[in-house]
Amino acid sequence: MKEEAFLEALAYIKARVEQELENLLPEDPSPGGRVVSAMRYSLLSGGKRLRPALCWWGAEAVGGRGEDFLLFACGLECLHTYSLIHDDLPAMDDDDLRRGQPTCHRAFDEATAILAGDGLQALAFELFSHPELLKKTAAERLLQALHLVAQAAGIHGMVGGQMADLLAEGKSVPLKTVEYIHAHKTAALITASVVSGGLLAGASPQEKESLWKYGEAVGLAFQIVDGLLDLTGEEKTLGKTVGADLKKKKATYPAVAGVEEARRQAQKLIEQALCALKPLGERAEPLRALARFVLSRQN
Amino acid sequence: MKEEAFLEALAYIKARVEQELENLLPEDPSPGGRVVSAMRYSLLSGGKRLRPALCWWGAEAVGGRGEDFLLFACGLECLHTYSLIHDDLPAMDDDDLRRGQPTCHRAFDEATAILAGDGLQALAFELFSHPELLKKTAAERLLQALHLVAQAAGIHGMVGGQMADLLAEGKSVPLKTVEYIHAHKTAALITASVVSGGLLAGASPQEKESLWKYGEAVGLAFQIVDGLLDLTGEEKTLGKTVGADLKKKKATYPAVAGVEEARRQAQKLIEQALCALKPLGERAEPLRALARFVLSRQN
Repeated sequence: MKEEAFLEALAYIKARVEQELENLLPEDPSPGGRVVSAMRYSLLSGGKRLRPALCWWGAEAVGGRGEDFLLFACGLECLHTYSLIHDDLPAMDDDDLRRGQPTCHRAFDEATAILAGDGLQALAFELFSHPELLKKTAAERLLQALHLVAQAAGIHGMVGGQMADLLAEGKSVPLKTVEYIHAHKTAALITASVVSGGLLAGASPQEKESLWKYGEAVGLAFQIVDGLLDLTGEEKTLGKTVGADLKKKKATYPAVAGVEEARRQAQKLIEQALCALKPLGERAEPLRALARFVLSRQN
Repeated sequence: MKEEAFLEALAYIKARVEQELENLLPEDPSPGGRVVSAMRYSLLSGGKRLRPALCWWGAEAVGGRGEDFLLFACGLECLHTYSLIHDDLPAMDDDDLRRGQPTCHRAFDEATAILAGDGLQALAFELFSHPELLKKTAAERLLQALHLVAQAAGIHGMVGGQMADLLAEGKSVPLKTVEYIHAHKTAALITASVVSGGLLAGASPQEKESLWKYGEAVGLAFQIVDGLLDLTGEEKTLGKTVGADLKKKKATYPAVAGVEEARRQAQKLIEQALCALKPLGERAEPLRALARFVLSRQN
């Protein structure tokens, strides 16, 4: 799959996800409706929508239809957005800007931002268990996928990773700790996204294993490239506010292992990811293109 | 059921829940393990465990075994504890004490407390979707119960109610808004707790309806009694830090409608709750005792 075709396919999923989220979360005139405005503000302010795309393509890689699981994919984006809102809070990374716009607590206030994150996590699980999904998959599969994502969101995933990240700030930490942070904070949900898509579409244990290895490798590479972009100080295509992690002396892979080693490691991980997909054949082509895309961001 | 027998039954469930939570969430030596300590600190520091008991007795009221759904009941307690941790944060109610102990952000720090709440919400959904539960109930029922609880946790439940509560602070609001706050912030999860127990045990639509009406009435009565206790400034049995809502000029029922009207309304709601249980007969006896217990707290 050429990069152009990949970007077109990604743009299609992004549009479908954003349309669905818009429909699922209308403004709410009730006394608590302010939190809905804040959730919409962060959820509908752009983003690559990589996690929904991973779920979609994870399903297709094992012969399913990505479209069937759009509600589940939207839940993954809610989960990701909640983690960004909370990570940006004054008590956490204290960021004023996200994707070039004021962060949620800057645009609203801290209490509203905390609640917006909480509400997005609840909405995620509301979507994962949506009755409509039972028209497309078995209840047991849906529960299995949901359970996997819950684990990736919690202490053995995002929450544990963010805790370790905060504790490592400004300190000299071993590479092992950086790898722990990446594996938990980012790679866990990326892995759960692609594997959940596969599970929903009825992946065999072997297919699940392939997607799992792919997700872990791509997730780690993604985070290493993020660290490289912070060091080189510029990300041309994605509009991220760069250099922020650098200023905060975050424990990034290139900061600890050096730029050259980080580049080698990212390259190696993408090769691993591509290798893991071999048994899935032609149908995994979008996932391969996504892995190459992750690596290309550093150039 | 006499009050003594009820308190004994409640103490039994409390002990079972606390033992299970202790087992489910051991201290974690990994780099992100600090958040686990904070979760344990808040989760295992007492509490009446009313929501797990409601789930347990909701199952028994329709002929199931409450014990079968202990993992689900523990998830409800995780969800409740997460909401307490976040409500106490400086940006929210800014409370220093909870059950006579320093609040989570006081005992740890703000970032850790935010993450502890986030981690407890994720853990809740991990428990709701636990594979062990499939030995006791059908996957469709489990998904239905989980979906209901997710809705009660989100913008149409706890999160929406807390947002409205914060916005009403220090303002003169109509009784309708107070009822909105109570119905969303407290009654939604109380209702979901008892109904989810029923659903897991295979409640018929009529039985579900009975439990639903009971939960809504008990949930609202619970919150009105809380407001009364704040006004009278003392809660003898439960060790709550009282008067806090009063100091913050929270919109409580007695503050808006007057003490006498609040007492009448709580009494009326408990009668409604008991009436709703009529079709369930003898098996709903613990739920009846719980309703009377809620009302007795004001004396």
